[in-house]
Amino acid sequence: MPPIIIDLYSDNAAPAAPEIMAALTRVNVGPAQPYGQDPESKALRTTFSDLFGTEVWVMPVSTGTAANSIALSALTPPYGTILCSDTAHIETSECGATELFSGGAKLTHVAAESGRMSADALNEVIGRAGKGLQHRSQPAAISLTIGTERGTVYPVSEIARIAEVARRHRLSLHIDGARIANALIALGASPRSVTTDLGVDALSFGATKNGALNTDAIVVFRKDIADELRYRVRRAGQVWSKMRYSAAQLNAYVEGGLWLRLAEQANRTAKRLAEGLGQVPGVRLMERVEINQVFAEMPEKVIACLEADGIVLGRRDQGVRMVTAWSTTTEEVDYVIGRARIHGD
Amino acid sequence: MPPIIIDLYSDNAAPAAPEIMAALTRVNVGPAQPYGQDPESKALRTTFSDLFGTEVWVMPVSTGTAANSIALSALTPPYGTILCSDTAHIETSECGATELFSGGAKLTHVAAESGRMSADALNEVIGRAGKGLQHRSQPAAISLTIGTERGTVYPVSEIARIAEVARRHRLSLHIDGARIANALIALGASPRSVTTDLGVDALSFGATKNGALNTDAIVVFRKDIADELRYRVRRAGQVWSKMRYSAAQLNAYVEGGLWLRLAEQANRTAKRLAEGLGQVPGVRLMERVEINQVFAEMPEKVIACLEADGIVLGRRDQGVRMVTAWSTTTEEVDYVIGRARIHGD
Amino acid sequence: MPPIIIDLYSDNAAPAAPEIMAALTRVNVGPAQPYGQDPESKALRTTFSDLFGTEVWVMPVSTGTAANSIALSALTPPYGTILCSDTAHIETSECGATELFSGGAKLTHVAAESGRMSADALNEVIGRAGKGLQHRSQPAAISLTIGTERGTVYPVSEIARIAEVARRHRLSLHIDGARIANALIALGASPRSVTTDLGVDALSFGATKNGALNTDAIVVFRKDIADELRYRVRRAGQVWSKMRYSAAQLNAYVEGGLWLRLAEQANRTAKRLAEGLGQVPGVRLMERVEINQVFAEMPEKVIACLEADGIVLGRRDQGVRMVTAWSTTTEEVDYVIGRARIHGD
Amino acid sequence: MPPIIIDLYSDNAAPAAPEIMAALTRVNVGPAQPYGQDPESKALRTTFSDLFGTEVWVMPVSTGTAANSIALSALTPPYGTILCSDTAHIETSECGATELFSGGAKLTHVAAESGRMSADALNEVIGRAGKGLQHRSQPAAISLTIGTERGTVYPVSEIARIAEVARRHRLSLHIDGARIANALIALGASPRSVTTDLGVDALSFGATKNGALNTDAIVVFRKDIADELRYRVRRAGQVWSKMRYSAAQLNAYVEGGLWLRLAEQANRTAKRLAEGLGQVPGVRLMERVEINQVFAEMPEKVIACLEADGIVLGRRDQGVRMVTAWSTTTEEVDYVIGRARIHGD
Repeated sequence: MPPIIIDLYSDNAAPAAPEIMAALTRVNVGPAQPYGQDPESKALRTTFSDLFGTEVWVMPVSTGTAANSIALSALTPPYGTILCSDTAHIETSECGATELFSGGAKLTHVAAESGRMSADALNEVIGRAGKGLQHRSQPAAISLTIGTERGTVYPVSEIARIAEVARRHRLSLHIDGARIANALIALGASPRSVTTDLGVDALSFGATKNGALNTDAIVVFRKDIADELRYRVRRAGQVWSKMRYSAAQLNAYVEGGLWLRLAEQANRTAKRLAEGLGQVPGVRLMERVEINQVFAEMPEKVIACLEADGIVLGRRDQGVRMVTAWSTTTEEVDYVIGRARIHGD
Repeated sequence: MPPIIIDLYSDNAAPAAPEIMAALTRVNVGPAQPYGQDPESKALRTTFSDLFGTEVWVMPVSTGTAANSIALSALTPPYGTILCSDTAHIETSECGATELFSGGAKLTHVAAESGRMSADALNEVIGRAGKGLQHRSQPAAISLTIGTERGTVYPVSEIARIAEVARRHRLSLHIDGARIANALIALGASPRSVTTDLGVDALSFGATKNGALNTDAIVVFRKDIADELRYRVRRAGQVWSKMRYSAAQLNAYVEGGLWLRLAEQANRTAKRLAEGLGQVPGVRLMERVEINQVFAEMPEKVIACLEADGIVLGRRDQGVRMVTAWSTTTEEVDYVIGRARIHGD
Repeated sequence: MPPIIIDLYSDNAAPAAPEIMAALTRVNVGPAQPYGQDPESKALRTTFSDLFGTEVWVMPVSTGTAANSIALSALTPPYGTILCSDTAHIETSECGATELFSGGAKLTHVAAESGRMSADALNEVIGRAGKGLQHRSQPAAISLTIGTERGTVYPVSEIARIAEVARRHRLSLHIDGARIANALIALGASPRSVTTDLGVDALSFGATKNGALNTDAIVVFRKDIADELRYRVRRAGQVWSKMRYSAAQLNAYVEGGLWLRLAEQANRTAKRLAEGLGQVPGVRLMERVEINQVFAEMPEKVIACLEADGIVLGRRDQGVRMVTAWSTTTEEVDYVIGRARIHGD
Repeated sequence: MPPIIIDLYSDNAAPAAPEIMAALTRVNVGPAQPYGQDPESKALRTTFSDLFGTEVWVMPVSTGTAANSIALSALTPPYGTILCSDTAHIETSECGATELFSGGAKLTHVAAESGRMSADALNEVIGRAGKGLQHRSQPAAISLTIGTERGTVYPVSEIARIAEVARRHRLSLHIDGARIANALIALGASPRSVTTDLGVDALSFGATKNGALNTDAIVVFRKDIADELRYRVRRAGQVWSKMRYSAAQLNAYVEGGLWLRLAEQANRTAKRLAEGLGQVPGVRLMERVEINQVFAEMPEKVIACLEADGIVLGRRDQGVRMVTAWSTTTEEVDYVIGRARIHGD
């Protein structure tokens, strides 16, 4: 392997943003009460309540998988099933975490197009799921990934329709926001417009993919769920004793809109990359690029040559995935496009 | 409350050591493959194999609770029971994490003296535990906290005897090493002398209490357990995508013996604190101080006055707990002793 | 081993009562809708609602362990703990069933005297259990065995006091009624006086030990719990498709007071056995005999000789357990007493 | 509703066979040691070892759901996934029992045709399942329903190919034999030819649908699995204290080939029903009828009229299901055919 020059394998390959590193230094002074009893951790709740325009509860956790699976464990009984797209991260990439923390609940798949399940498809699957039948796992919650695993976003109007489906069937609603900042940039929407205003119950608030070091968070919009999650996160081994180091990351992340600026850069470079690659002969974009992921089919020769150039891509069964991050530069994507043009000839 | 001047509530109240902060900065450069495929994370295994004098497997996790409960989940079937002291952290302070990750195993208590269960007491409890009886949860593993919850340590010879009990009954052996560095200093022992050499199967390797920000690790001494834990940590939401930030902490922590120097400072100040307080009229040390925890009975008046002085103690049902950390200074403990003397008069 | 002449090993060794066998034959005619949709199964609810003087929900299950553990799984969150005596069947003899079905809840022991925990001891243990503390499994339910594992019963007044403790701490209350018929006979109390009238939430209603073939039941006194248990029993594999064969046993069991007559015989012979043995030199009754179990210390020689006589006893660490059943006769116990006298000389 | 005259809703609607009722009476004599220590229960192992031509272990359980889910729990780690058809009973009709007992394993669906998944389709799904990838639930076992949920059977040769797929990928193999007797009759095969000879690990041995009252069994072909299941069945609340009543049913069920005679009757009447209905205008058979289930589309008018005649059918989203049982007579199916002809005109 050549030295990595440009890493588009995942936004997780990016380093941490300097503002967030600075926050760690800022709080690394003297003693602080453990387990969230320090001022930095206590400030989280205010910071996020302001962000969502209502009282919320914030629980820092170490990964997005932890956020998803622990949040969902409070939204379903063990005999429940969670409706999600068949490409959802909770289904394909978390090694059964939701099944673990829920005590054996199921995931029921809704066929997705471009990473999104439609409210109609969802409604139909729920209608056939046997609500009230003793032999069937009971529909309990819906989980949607707002910035999807295929690089698209749910329009606010579709989230609203899905929320309406949830209400109609008395299901809880969870948003996997691993890339919520990217989604909000793409939608031009406020945090509350996709959560609070629509009756969302819990949100996995992603930070690591977009500039944090090693923290994400569960944001909860109902006190009863927060009361339960308080113990669920503890017994999941997800309550840091030195919580200030997570809280500082999260506070710095949203302060002054940093998170949105970081995501804006990732989205912009992804769009530029897509537009450039889309004009390379033999390259075909597989999905609309709405956030920071580009899915493209390209000749094996091109892929191999890009890799030889030190560009790291994510090979898939079909085509490649390229993910930009807060730290991806215009120069980098232009370099990739340029090399692809050369190899594609 | 007065401003906190000296925090002896827990070693978790201490900040992170500068060497560990520096390591974060060191690795925060450019891209790095996620989920442990970066060089810093890959180096972990060599670092720790050197430390333990044998091939080991290292899995960074976010908390000591995660380390304990996930490690134990690979050492017991769900119908098993884990033998531990009745003051063990896994029993008293982890909100049922071991029960969660094991799929419903039990903990069977062995009465502890000064935080330690004896090999004999353990052997007797196992003998009465109904091994082979279908109606009884089956003894599967022993967990001991090497630097105990009462501030004492297990002598190496007693760990060896407990390991012998484990072998005799074909049980796995786990060490909760939340304060392993403090214990090794107290014992003057090498890491391998309390693990590898005795047939220990898995170790919760503590770092957060002794200078790290937000990481601990599971260290495994058997490949079959490591193979299984690989999936168990993932589905526990405990595999950081940006693992370099955990790996860097752990590598820096053990490099050049930093961890032992940090623990040595904590132990030394605890001992000085104990000796000083022990001479204050009305104060009674409740346990021998072997690591960095001091348990003492003192008049309520003294406790309240110390608190008013800005000294944070851990009040217990009986007496108080005072915990020193890597960052505790001689001046600080002398101040505490001095104030106690004044209040005790 | 000699042929078994008299089996006092357990009330489970007894055959099924003829009235219950007859009920099987009665319902074994023609088709019947499965999974409880047949008339015999539907009648259960009326039968038991009449019995308890209020609307109840009845769920037949195959064993007392299933009844206890599944009922309790609806009374505790997975991060909860269930208070019970240290000699409770759920703790000592069910191989972790409650831990399984609850998704990893704990059992917290209350020291029992003669099989009973006192309301005061219970209250004290709950007081120290860390309600509201994030690090502790949360007290969620109390389980008491009305006819205890040591052959005693809880006075109605003590159950009332325990129910008051449950209310005070907002815990659910479960009764293990493996031998509820024997207990009611001993107490001279009605079913409702120990359940409905006291605010009990769920009852494991034992039948197998007292004349049924292979069924017990969960009786629930709150609709919300019943709604949840409907799915929990199904996914536990505890909903018989041909439910009429369980329902018929249960209906016949309580019809015309059969269950109480059967228990009365068991209690009477146990008492006679105890009185007789109590006068044999060298024999010491270890507990008051209030239901159908006799615990006695006797010389090893006597035990061995009784066994040689074809009398099956339950050897314990200390002494022996002898259990009478609905089918135990006066002649049988007199024979045992007579033989013991001879051997004891 | 008219009185039920003929019940084709399910084979579970049938009564118990007289031979099995007689066996209950036979063993209802005097005491018998509990929990399987009685002669009748001990005989089970010999009976079934003879049946399968090798040493097997038999564990009576109360339902087919219990048999499936508990057996599977010993064949998969909690982070595993079980491959099964998308119409499998464990997926569609057991309220998540396998997820419960396995501690949160997943089920991965293989598209079935006429209730059967092909070895090729299975192989392909396994190939894409991410074996060895940390983010994916790990393929652990295959479960196939030998007499399928659509009334078809797996040819022995296809089971052999599936067993080969299992071996190739080192997966365990489980057979759901809820209707194994019907399948063996259809195949003209011996019990061992579809299990022992092919390397099957565990079998859910159905009896209730084919003449028993209330018992099925897990049959295990490997000692290590049996050793583990011993505790798993106990903690599942599935070990009857008075096991003789289950053992007697199972012993009588296979004695002298009763089970095959009973199944032969069910299969024969199903075939006759199918042939008759197949000639009724407007009726279309949806599947080949290989065991005792008939799936047919018929005009709503015909369905309603048959129901008005007192014939109980199973309405499905599409068409109806009619299931014959050991007790279904030629006269009964001829009556159904005749009425359908009249209504169909």
